[in-house]
Amino acid sequence: MKTVFSPRHSDHWLRYEYSGGQAKPCFEKPDRVEFVKREILNRRLGSILLAEEFSLDHLCAVHDESYIRFLQECWAQWVKEMNPELDAIATVFNRQSFADHIEPRSIEARLGKYSADLTAGLGPKSWYAIEASAHVALSGAKQLLGGEKAMFSLCRPAGHHASAALMAGYCYVNNAAVAAQYCLDQGCDRVAILDIDYHHGNGTQSIFYERSEVFVASIHADPDQEYPFYAGRADECGALKGLGANLNIPLSLGTTAWPEYQTALQQSMDAIASYKPDVLIVSLGVDTYEEDPISHFRLSSDDFTKIGKQLAALDLPSLFVFEGGYAVGAIGVNTVNVLEAYSEAVMQNPSVVSL
Amino acid sequence: MKTVFSPRHSDHWLRYEYSGGQAKPCFEKPDRVEFVKREILNRRLGSILLAEEFSLDHLCAVHDESYIRFLQECWAQWVKEMNPELDAIATVFNRQSFADHIEPRSIEARLGKYSADLTAGLGPKSWYAIEASAHVALSGAKQLLGGEKAMFSLCRPAGHHASAALMAGYCYVNNAAVAAQYCLDQGCDRVAILDIDYHHGNGTQSIFYERSEVFVASIHADPDQEYPFYAGRADECGALKGLGANLNIPLSLGTTAWPEYQTALQQSMDAIASYKPDVLIVSLGVDTYEEDPISHFRLSSDDFTKIGKQLAALDLPSLFVFEGGYAVGAIGVNTVNVLEAYSEAVMQNPSVVSL
Repeated sequence: MKTVFSPRHSDHWLRYEYSGGQAKPCFEKPDRVEFVKREILNRRLGSILLAEEFSLDHLCAVHDESYIRFLQECWAQWVKEMNPELDAIATVFNRQSFADHIEPRSIEARLGKYSADLTAGLGPKSWYAIEASAHVALSGAKQLLGGEKAMFSLCRPAGHHASAALMAGYCYVNNAAVAAQYCLDQGCDRVAILDIDYHHGNGTQSIFYERSEVFVASIHADPDQEYPFYAGRADECGALKGLGANLNIPLSLGTTAWPEYQTALQQSMDAIASYKPDVLIVSLGVDTYEEDPISHFRLSSDDFTKIGKQLAALDLPSLFVFEGGYAVGAIGVNTVNVLEAYSEAVMQNPSVVSL
Repeated sequence: MKTVFSPRHSDHWLRYEYSGGQAKPCFEKPDRVEFVKREILNRRLGSILLAEEFSLDHLCAVHDESYIRFLQECWAQWVKEMNPELDAIATVFNRQSFADHIEPRSIEARLGKYSADLTAGLGPKSWYAIEASAHVALSGAKQLLGGEKAMFSLCRPAGHHASAALMAGYCYVNNAAVAAQYCLDQGCDRVAILDIDYHHGNGTQSIFYERSEVFVASIHADPDQEYPFYAGRADECGALKGLGANLNIPLSLGTTAWPEYQTALQQSMDAIASYKPDVLIVSLGVDTYEEDPISHFRLSSDDFTKIGKQLAALDLPSLFVFEGGYAVGAIGVNTVNVLEAYSEAVMQNPSVVSL
């Protein structure tokens, strides 16, 4: 399996993340993808391609233009109005509806219009990493539509918590959603997104919630107990034209190990198979790992191999888009375990053909 | 003029406030009302009464019951799930609609359901101060309806940024709104609230936005430039039955001194006079002061005397409810300047009669 990568990911780094009422050192840091890249090379997974450039239109196809403009402009305005020694983060949020139609003028107010929490700050060059990360996803989708059976887009920053006009949870542009929309725009009729990050893919869900041409499934920690808290429940099934095209499988914290996970994975795969998509996009987080520092599932490194093997049974052209995973030492092993097992299983199964 | 007070205000204090992307020492601290109380005694404004107790029903008449329960329960749950060495503050917020109908289980998620920013944390005994502050407002309203021409409710914490189910900007229970609703429940047909705090009274506006029996006027810093950013524009005039019963007069930061302020005050008073309320409630913030550390108007201490004198011309039974003001040294002088001038003007004007 080939990987797409951009070195520009390292342009994005923050001083702190704020959660649980306090500033903490960042769990989301550039090392994460460097560990994955190193493991790809060590294990000879396949070649690593540099991301191509794409038009901003592909990002604006799933995000509000004003939001993308904000992401581009934020740091320059933050430096002018606030303090360049601090990360640009929101500390006041738009929770009433009086000004929903207004583009606020001050950077403090713009941040609060476009943020849902304090774990998605912006630094001096974050935009370049965000844009490059979307290009990594788009390049993977382009390769897939060009005939590859499977691709890995080693995105950073991640995307699945980002909705049309909100950054949140280390996410800014929803890479998986951008790739899905690209596939539709290039002629696919139906795309499925399977989100196996530990956290619910609330951004992806919200972007496609009322649309039928993208089926979104997510297996994740119960939002009654875990971030993102306000979405991810089993009764969220889509709305309007999208009714029935959203599947959430929340699992318990602390106790979820391979048997429960395997069952949930099979359930989501059955739903995706019934949907008959042209392509599958996997939002691949490996924070389901038992030693992840901020998560509470109990998957072992071997279980990630099982995930890859199981996914191959879907027989679909598949784009893996990198999302979360924070146990930096093991993040490479676990990610490549999924990808390598998937590749090997596909090689043994000639029924998967190019588009 | 008599003052109502509760010593329980000092149960509420926080370690930090977070604004502009960083932790800062708190500008909102217990000293604030102690300075005002001392000035009331020095200047012999009138007697100081202790607040009476009232039923929680009066708070729930303008706030969601689940929100009031959250305020009561927050600290105990925070200690159990999080860190008692930290203030209980939200760092993740409910910005999507999937879970609006759900009472979240974790305290982190409950905080994010009921907060709009990071300047309204809760400490170990904050609830007792919050409840007492509402009782201070209710006691003032009760005295007013009992025949006093004017009363001062020396509330802390303040209330005008708190909406039905959101704490924000140092505010938890909307004391002025609770008092206004109490007046209606006790037989008044129409109540006017005039908010002269430097910041827009967005909580008060939102509570009464669709109701005709409370007229809300606010003179404040332009929300394009100043907190609360997402409300307070001149085109917000009320909705449904409340259409026409909301008046916002935003003024420019930096340049607003007495001439502009006087004009705005007269405009709001003219609108209130036309509304013909039974009583007037003044949300009295003195952060319009030229030396206030977080605000940018240019009123002098003498200008507060002019405000009091001008307000007396409305000839209405008036309850002053304390809101913001952070130049601690001058906060007492400026507050009592308003109240003393009002009292003296009313004494010279026998047309103001009890209800």
